[in-house]
Amino acid sequence: MKARLTITLKSGVLDPQGRAIQAALGGLGFDGVGDVRAGKVIELELAEGTPPETIDAMCRQLLANTVMENYRVELL
Amino acid sequence: MKARLTITLKSGVLDPQGRAIQAALGGLGFDGVGDVRAGKVIELELAEGTPPETIDAMCRQLLANTVMENYRVELL
Repeated sequence: MKARLTITLKSGVLDPQGRAIQAALGGLGFDGVGDVRAGKVIELELAEGTPPETIDAMCRQLLANTVMENYRVELL
Repeated sequence: MKARLTITLKSGVLDPQGRAIQAALGGLGFDGVGDVRAGKVIELELAEGTPPETIDAMCRQLLANTVMENYRVELL
């Protein structure tokens, strides 16, 4: 069983990495680049039948800082 | 126009971050966690009509290290 977790900063939280990417793209001559938000994607191999609550607990305890980040779980 | 880029290490490339996450999850008592692969997700606000070739060029020139990483473009 495989799960993909996408962890992104909540809107309103300053994203310095995104700002740096935006500036660098502009510096390379790419026009029309607006807001850039950077985040993490984590793909996990899990034992069959791992309940969604367990994946949620993994996110809340370790993988996402729920104060500043949102996470999305996709079962692949 | 919005695009989401998912950048992950190519299979076969050692992923120390993934290993660290795997060990930490085990340490927290989560059993049955197999291989873990960590990557980046970047969401870009682009001018309407930005051609896919331009987004590809952004990835190849800046956002992904195509020697070790794969990238996937989704238009949102």
